[in-house]
Amino acid sequence: MTALLNNDTFLRACLREATEYTPVWLMRQAGRYLPEYCATRAKAGSFMGLATNVDFATEVTLQPLDRYKLDAAILFSDILTVPDAMGLGLTFTQGEGPKFAKNVRDEASVAQLSVPDMDKLRYVFDAVTSIRKALNGRVPLIGFSGSPWTLACYMVEGAGSDDYRHVKSLMYSRPDLMHKILSVNADAVAQYLNAQIRAGAQAVMIFDSWGGVLADRAFQEFSLAYTARVLSQIERSYEGTQIPRIVFTKGGGLWLKQMQSLDCEVLGLDWTMNLGLAKELVGGQVGGEGKALQGNIDPNVLFSPPDKIVHEVRAVLDSFGAPHTDRKLKGPTHIFNLGHGISQYTPPEHVSALVDTVHDYSKQLRGAA
Amino acid sequence: MTALLNNDTFLRACLREATEYTPVWLMRQAGRYLPEYCATRAKAGSFMGLATNVDFATEVTLQPLDRYKLDAAILFSDILTVPDAMGLGLTFTQGEGPKFAKNVRDEASVAQLSVPDMDKLRYVFDAVTSIRKALNGRVPLIGFSGSPWTLACYMVEGAGSDDYRHVKSLMYSRPDLMHKILSVNADAVAQYLNAQIRAGAQAVMIFDSWGGVLADRAFQEFSLAYTARVLSQIERSYEGTQIPRIVFTKGGGLWLKQMQSLDCEVLGLDWTMNLGLAKELVGGQVGGEGKALQGNIDPNVLFSPPDKIVHEVRAVLDSFGAPHTDRKLKGPTHIFNLGHGISQYTPPEHVSALVDTVHDYSKQLRGAA
Repeated sequence: MTALLNNDTFLRACLREATEYTPVWLMRQAGRYLPEYCATRAKAGSFMGLATNVDFATEVTLQPLDRYKLDAAILFSDILTVPDAMGLGLTFTQGEGPKFAKNVRDEASVAQLSVPDMDKLRYVFDAVTSIRKALNGRVPLIGFSGSPWTLACYMVEGAGSDDYRHVKSLMYSRPDLMHKILSVNADAVAQYLNAQIRAGAQAVMIFDSWGGVLADRAFQEFSLAYTARVLSQIERSYEGTQIPRIVFTKGGGLWLKQMQSLDCEVLGLDWTMNLGLAKELVGGQVGGEGKALQGNIDPNVLFSPPDKIVHEVRAVLDSFGAPHTDRKLKGPTHIFNLGHGISQYTPPEHVSALVDTVHDYSKQLRGAA
Repeated sequence: MTALLNNDTFLRACLREATEYTPVWLMRQAGRYLPEYCATRAKAGSFMGLATNVDFATEVTLQPLDRYKLDAAILFSDILTVPDAMGLGLTFTQGEGPKFAKNVRDEASVAQLSVPDMDKLRYVFDAVTSIRKALNGRVPLIGFSGSPWTLACYMVEGAGSDDYRHVKSLMYSRPDLMHKILSVNADAVAQYLNAQIRAGAQAVMIFDSWGGVLADRAFQEFSLAYTARVLSQIERSYEGTQIPRIVFTKGGGLWLKQMQSLDCEVLGLDWTMNLGLAKELVGGQVGGEGKALQGNIDPNVLFSPPDKIVHEVRAVLDSFGAPHTDRKLKGPTHIFNLGHGISQYTPPEHVSALVDTVHDYSKQLRGAA
């Protein structure tokens, strides 16, 4: 459990400390684009069968690390485990994505919501502990949850959506009910992340995947405020070690300056944001306060041939600029990632070109600085 | 054809001239949420049957004007008429959206592309002339087209998409082919809009509906540059009257400052952008240069009860602030609209609350200034 880390590059970059190269991991790195993942999923029978089985979850979490020189592992799970534990009945139908047996759209169903007994999520915490042990200090393990707003989207819609009609109707018509849902979600997410930390997660990430569908003003009131409420309840350290907290709002670039006030170490960005501009806005100076930045290449770049991938990866690293190299001071840092989860159609061999270029070229950039 | 306009509020606001109230129209205002539209469509048999029949297109364009005090009409048509005229074979299947018989994904299919004979789009220009005549000066008529990039999305994908995998694969793998497609599209769109202007359109709008899915850098190279290429070829005036040009990039808020350089009068905004910030960035001062702004309420607001709609409409007007009232000088102006097309599920009676509040409250704001 307490094996020393062989590679703490990711954690140091989260804390805005200088690193020898830019660390890299990929959102949804354990996923359907890997044939070995598909094989394990076939054994498990279903997505939830995979996510709820500690051995399978451990196996798939480690698979991408065996293929690529990634600098972090992320718990294999789903953002919808929390509403499932609230009793909404989560299933994944082939090709259709997540579905809930019940949705939450009226006064009565909102009144029934409460923070679930964390014991119902024991399979997640057990997986964290098992993965941490299996990693044996290879790289750090990231725990995660959906944001209160993003969970609410699925709870109200009952499934994925392309217009968010039901959740936005409720939000505009009955803001009181929406605030009630979000309060319960925020407290549940905080307990959930704290339990992941106690089980062995070395950093935690909040996925506000659907924050970007909100209007200005609504984002601040219904998403940002509740992400802040989660953060205010999360342990800052565990067993004497600081636990970095990452917040990723897809489509949230316009609100980056407002996200600076969040009590977290890292802000994740999608591909629409210029990293140099983001650094200017929230990255801070060497010796000053700021946020580490994580992201942000378009996952679709991985469909192009390796020489084009190399070109695009370099351009993203260049847009951030030369990272600071002062070992005594904190300063702007960059954690390379995609701007969204990797596509199931990605050719696995293309991912090596991305990972290797991040490492090689970011070392060059430091040398040149 | 040359009937004097009874209501030129919209055109004056486009040119940043002071108006007595904030003009309003709604993207997709002639659409499925109106029972009278559904009745006409049923008579026409299909979407393309509706769009290609001059009488039907005229009828549905005018329908929302009979219900609501809108300040502009927009041609009833579809953004995909241009690739259809290129020979790609457009159809609309019930509930599934547009589909092309052929897609454009390889060297051979790109080589076959060319600017279509505008005679194939005569039905559009005839509709413009017919609508203009039927309007008889009631409000101005807006013509429109999809942007080169947005058309390319459909041409390469062959239909709508949720990940833009094919078009982005082509863009990253074969940027030369993508530039070829976009060049043809830009020249076709320019000819198409010029023909609409000659047929009677009093303003034109370019819908870059999918510009916002692009990464930073890719947006500038593959969308913005080709919108600029269209604008460089559009007539600035017709028969002595200036023709305002509107550019709307959904999800383009992060690039607003870069869009300022476009040779157009109005920039459209979706609901993620704060209008006050947008005004500060590109709206200009009284007596100075700048862009008029159009937008940007979340169409989902229309699902809430009228009192909530009133509240949200006022908040959007407030976010822009008091419009300038100097009759001698140009200055920041706002054209009220949705941040995207109106949903087919909108209760028609809710739209009155929006339109009436825009007029009433924006008059109050001017009085208070």
